[in-house]
Amino acid sequence: MCQANVYIERGGIEELVMENVDILEPKGENLFLRSLFGEQKILPLRIKLISLINNKIILEE
Amino acid sequence: MCQANVYIERGGIEELVMENVDILEPKGENLFLRSLFGEQKILPLRIKLISLINNKIILEE
Repeated sequence: MCQANVYIERGGIEELVMENVDILEPKGENLFLRSLFGEQKILPLRIKLISLINNKIILEE
Repeated sequence: MCQANVYIERGGIEELVMENVDILEPKGENLFLRSLFGEQKILPLRIKLISLINNKIILEE
């Protein structure tokens, strides 16, 4: 079992989008996120980089 | 720290692509994968679903 923190990168700066993320699912132009605690977001972003060792996922516009 | 096993789904069947994956990085139409042990692949696939609790990432064509 693992989880990751999800960030959006804008202008070289990483901003936290959601902590303890379990599910990520691209849906057309959007990305569905769900945390271990049931928090959900649908964002018009895509995955830029996943680094599981660092528990980190970076999104971009 | 975590890792995941990566599968490709074809015709409803999941086939293992790489175990113990650390890095996933979309690069244009391709997807770069790297395992904890340094194994690397570049595949013309995209991410369909990430389920970190299940240490599972599913790709699709």
